[in-house]
Amino acid sequence: MKAFVYRGPGKKALEERPKPEITAGTDAIVKIVKTTICGTDLHILKGDVPTCQPGRILGHEGVGIVDQVGAAVTVFKPGDHVLISCVSACGKCVYCRKQMYSHCTTGGWILGNRIDGTQAEFVRTPYADTSLYPIPEGADEEALVMLSDILPTGFECGVLNGKVQPGSVIAIVGSGPVGLAALLTAQFFSPAEIIMIDLDDNRLEMAKRFGATSSINSADGKAVETVMKMTDKRGVDTAIEAVGIPATFELCEKIVTPGGTIANIGVHGQQVALHLECLWDRNISITTRLVDTATIPMLFKTVRSHKIDPKRLITHRFKLERILDAYETFGNAAKTKALKVIIEA
Amino acid sequence: MKAFVYRGPGKKALEERPKPEITAGTDAIVKIVKTTICGTDLHILKGDVPTCQPGRILGHEGVGIVDQVGAAVTVFKPGDHVLISCVSACGKCVYCRKQMYSHCTTGGWILGNRIDGTQAEFVRTPYADTSLYPIPEGADEEALVMLSDILPTGFECGVLNGKVQPGSVIAIVGSGPVGLAALLTAQFFSPAEIIMIDLDDNRLEMAKRFGATSSINSADGKAVETVMKMTDKRGVDTAIEAVGIPATFELCEKIVTPGGTIANIGVHGQQVALHLECLWDRNISITTRLVDTATIPMLFKTVRSHKIDPKRLITHRFKLERILDAYETFGNAAKTKALKVIIEA
Amino acid sequence: MKAFVYRGPGKKALEERPKPEITAGTDAIVKIVKTTICGTDLHILKGDVPTCQPGRILGHEGVGIVDQVGAAVTVFKPGDHVLISCVSACGKCVYCRKQMYSHCTTGGWILGNRIDGTQAEFVRTPYADTSLYPIPEGADEEALVMLSDILPTGFECGVLNGKVQPGSVIAIVGSGPVGLAALLTAQFFSPAEIIMIDLDDNRLEMAKRFGATSSINSADGKAVETVMKMTDKRGVDTAIEAVGIPATFELCEKIVTPGGTIANIGVHGQQVALHLECLWDRNISITTRLVDTATIPMLFKTVRSHKIDPKRLITHRFKLERILDAYETFGNAAKTKALKVIIEA
Amino acid sequence: MKAFVYRGPGKKALEERPKPEITAGTDAIVKIVKTTICGTDLHILKGDVPTCQPGRILGHEGVGIVDQVGAAVTVFKPGDHVLISCVSACGKCVYCRKQMYSHCTTGGWILGNRIDGTQAEFVRTPYADTSLYPIPEGADEEALVMLSDILPTGFECGVLNGKVQPGSVIAIVGSGPVGLAALLTAQFFSPAEIIMIDLDDNRLEMAKRFGATSSINSADGKAVETVMKMTDKRGVDTAIEAVGIPATFELCEKIVTPGGTIANIGVHGQQVALHLECLWDRNISITTRLVDTATIPMLFKTVRSHKIDPKRLITHRFKLERILDAYETFGNAAKTKALKVIIEA
Repeated sequence: MKAFVYRGPGKKALEERPKPEITAGTDAIVKIVKTTICGTDLHILKGDVPTCQPGRILGHEGVGIVDQVGAAVTVFKPGDHVLISCVSACGKCVYCRKQMYSHCTTGGWILGNRIDGTQAEFVRTPYADTSLYPIPEGADEEALVMLSDILPTGFECGVLNGKVQPGSVIAIVGSGPVGLAALLTAQFFSPAEIIMIDLDDNRLEMAKRFGATSSINSADGKAVETVMKMTDKRGVDTAIEAVGIPATFELCEKIVTPGGTIANIGVHGQQVALHLECLWDRNISITTRLVDTATIPMLFKTVRSHKIDPKRLITHRFKLERILDAYETFGNAAKTKALKVIIEA
Repeated sequence: MKAFVYRGPGKKALEERPKPEITAGTDAIVKIVKTTICGTDLHILKGDVPTCQPGRILGHEGVGIVDQVGAAVTVFKPGDHVLISCVSACGKCVYCRKQMYSHCTTGGWILGNRIDGTQAEFVRTPYADTSLYPIPEGADEEALVMLSDILPTGFECGVLNGKVQPGSVIAIVGSGPVGLAALLTAQFFSPAEIIMIDLDDNRLEMAKRFGATSSINSADGKAVETVMKMTDKRGVDTAIEAVGIPATFELCEKIVTPGGTIANIGVHGQQVALHLECLWDRNISITTRLVDTATIPMLFKTVRSHKIDPKRLITHRFKLERILDAYETFGNAAKTKALKVIIEA
Repeated sequence: MKAFVYRGPGKKALEERPKPEITAGTDAIVKIVKTTICGTDLHILKGDVPTCQPGRILGHEGVGIVDQVGAAVTVFKPGDHVLISCVSACGKCVYCRKQMYSHCTTGGWILGNRIDGTQAEFVRTPYADTSLYPIPEGADEEALVMLSDILPTGFECGVLNGKVQPGSVIAIVGSGPVGLAALLTAQFFSPAEIIMIDLDDNRLEMAKRFGATSSINSADGKAVETVMKMTDKRGVDTAIEAVGIPATFELCEKIVTPGGTIANIGVHGQQVALHLECLWDRNISITTRLVDTATIPMLFKTVRSHKIDPKRLITHRFKLERILDAYETFGNAAKTKALKVIIEA
Repeated sequence: MKAFVYRGPGKKALEERPKPEITAGTDAIVKIVKTTICGTDLHILKGDVPTCQPGRILGHEGVGIVDQVGAAVTVFKPGDHVLISCVSACGKCVYCRKQMYSHCTTGGWILGNRIDGTQAEFVRTPYADTSLYPIPEGADEEALVMLSDILPTGFECGVLNGKVQPGSVIAIVGSGPVGLAALLTAQFFSPAEIIMIDLDDNRLEMAKRFGATSSINSADGKAVETVMKMTDKRGVDTAIEAVGIPATFELCEKIVTPGGTIANIGVHGQQVALHLECLWDRNISITTRLVDTATIPMLFKTVRSHKIDPKRLITHRFKLERILDAYETFGNAAKTKALKVIIEA
């Protein structure tokens, strides 16, 4: 089968690989229908993710059709249409028991990382019964690809952890795909103001169309000042960090109101300065989280009832044969204005 | 009347001062029966608290008897025995409405800071109806002095924010008075393990007597290693920071388990390094809080029903005339083994 | 001044009454701009509310302009435009401290009940600082009349107590004004399905326009069956009772899913049968609540940010001189299709 | 093997039965070491539980040693010492995902009910990986038998649902084994007062020894009056119903304070009168729950750290051969003062 393979820092290839096989009773083999590329895949290609070794098939998102199941699989059977969670959950360990699937002691984010992933014609998914989700007939499968990772990430790490409430004022720092996912799902809770902050006017423009009530281009270094002016010096109830660098996290520290929350989504590569000399008496919370995808069933219902339209995140479509072009497009988002690109297998 | 006055960095005096007078309808004048000294008072004396200017009578804790009330006071009358909260709460602003009294827009921690305090024969307490608490006849008033500040501080900032649960494993970093207050109140929730960490063996010994299940002297730089060994490499569910310096906060970052909480109590004077490169995917919470004293009524009930004995924190007693000796004793805790010292007015 | 007065069961009159005066330092006198009629006023007129004695000026909702304030009032001054909460809150008692204003030991729902109310040219409002809310310039005051009682009632008793969530399935039994208030505010949380149940097709039609996803006329006695069919036999996550009779409450008992919630809003005059023989093992919650109006500030923000349009509840407008006609119209809602009627003073 | 079998209403027998066999890959066969009798078993023997048919081996509690495991079992292996939950949980369905194991779509309470149970030498346990709990070496296995059902029942249905808090006042109606289990576990949260109510002075005496702060024999019909007197007319924050008849539930309705909670544990066979005419405006919650045993791991930790001593519930011990005597003793608790009886297999 065709598969997109990481070949070491800076190297990638579309290769012919053997179709995967069941290796444990809880496995399923899923024929990929559609998959997509995540910002994390770009990190892997740069060599920034040491758990992912050369030779690995990338990809941890997608929808497909069950091809085979192991002897212990009871929920799914060949022919079932399924959504693949980016997180594999054994369903038995102490973390899975409390829906903290990201920290499953034998699973977690392993797809396209420690084991071969979804950017291929087929994928082996461990713990199928608790890591796949049934797609009902008639559902828009392309929209559901957004539920593998990006929407639950924005929702769980940003919106739920950030305790967004009706009438609250929130800021989202970073208007890339994950920031926009937070923006879309934040609206489930009817905040009064959603201030989007980024360096790219294009992305801010898009954020306005996605429901941001105002936007700030922070290139002039005056974002804090502007937020304070917009909020009558109160600051924001929730600051969602969706970039992953010290500057944006510290921006959040400066704009959060007493009693508020900083919800981190960004993947950070270095330490940040936590200004406890200012924050120790401000009654704030800071949260971090690797997506658990525990809210996939809830998000499913919101999609089916048209409370959210995940397809707004999809900007480009490619066949699997052209996945190198897809990476090119996704990797040059500033120029191509790509958000999420769909790969059809 | 006699009053203890801050006279500028390094200078203090017991002086004769006029008895305070009602200046607003919501004020009460309280005759002090017993008060105490807080670590924050030592900070003021060093000149570290810029809001507190020379000439100020210090003290923000105590019990006393109402002497006079302003025209708008309805809950209290002269002769009532009262506990004085360290936080003055107007009861009307947006923060007071949600019991976040620490951020009252016209109150908060002002006693012995922006206005004259309780280390005197009398004190003027603003917003009396919502900042004093009635003491029922027969109560042990000395024990209740611990409810003005130190017990709610340990309980609200450390234990409640830290979400201590039956069966959980917690660590308290810092075995001074506030760490011990957290230790005492943590036991309301029956955690399985309470690991106390400090540099002073004396204080750790005391912690064991107060209910710690184990203790670690971190002087050898191996506290992280030891905690990990004690918890089968899992780390602690709750790490309570009760010191206020970068080293102890970073220790908390290293020992908190995935899904756990770091609850900061310490007053920090500088930034700390937040290792988001390790923590971004650990599903943790970090909280900060200035005590609101919103739990005083709850703590009152636990004292009356003997679920806690606050007097265990009291090590020394002085008359107001000897308050300079009291400061000497409290300021040299390593030598005197002082925790809280009672001043009788 | 002109005032609408309850004159004993079945009797009412528009009378000339002296303008009210300040009787306590915390009082304000408010010149009424607009008020409205509540279903509870109809109950009083029937003689069903024993706390309300003949001679009482009715009304507990409205917006107005502060005319005078008592000596202890600090938040408001004459000329301020204010929203009047239906609940008077002293701000000091144990219940007010936890925002359970409905049970204020010296306040609660007293306006137009134990003391004279708002259906007059002027009203005396006790505890003005904690029972009035400032209206910013430029706000639509008529819309805000809905925040005195009906919207917080639907929201607090129905939606918040009912724990409405994104993607959840809810049923609201009773499509009168309070049921519709629940319907409007439930949408803050993006439920997937809102099933409206009533006996009146007109009201159900209106519910559809207000956002219900489906409606059931329960006249045929098959409402339970229909709900079960619509929900694949699961039942609803939240059942909101907005009528106040045994039949509708028992309907809720039958349609709530395991793990779900029944949130009662209805004013009940008699006991209902709680079928614990069916429910003891269903992991459900049942909640009751007298509105606290603690969410008025939150609702204010949702109105200002256009997340909700409270004016959709207003169907008729009358001058105070014609308040008897207003009662006639409101009291014959089945015929007049009245929801809320505005009275301009 | 020897097994205790229900033979139809009023009939029971100790019989010889074949050793159970693995029927599904997720099964385990457990050799019973110790089991016990539940009040529910007595209900079955009376013929009150229609899901349990004649011929059934009873028992849903116990500890044992794994004898065989199915092909899909990964957590346990023969020789492991295990605690058996009274609830079988597939770990995959929508209810299991949210730890509401009691409503597992293919499990729930089936042991000793729909399938053969633990009062035998061996038992087949379905969904072994998510329904058994490992017992570490050196643990007191007899104590742990109390964690199969009775302690989680008192804790989850009574204490957690009842939101017991430090300093709160609670009443437990019913001082039988399950009421005493609630009493023991309520103390995890340090309530100020625990009022125990029953008709039997013996059981009330025992309650005092188990930590009740006061007790009321309700035989004189004055329990409500007495509770109100003890609580200064406030009522109790939490009322736990641990009997299962209308009179005791209605007692809870009368003693719950505004803002409080009624947590039902009792198994009810008929409807009760819910006095909404009194309660609609009292801001209360009523909860029901079939035990999920989701707190077994938490309870395990509290036992290991000596926060609770479950053996206090054990009054008698029998060999399996004498199980008929055990039933006799347990069934005549008023005379024998039996709480829980241990059966050694």
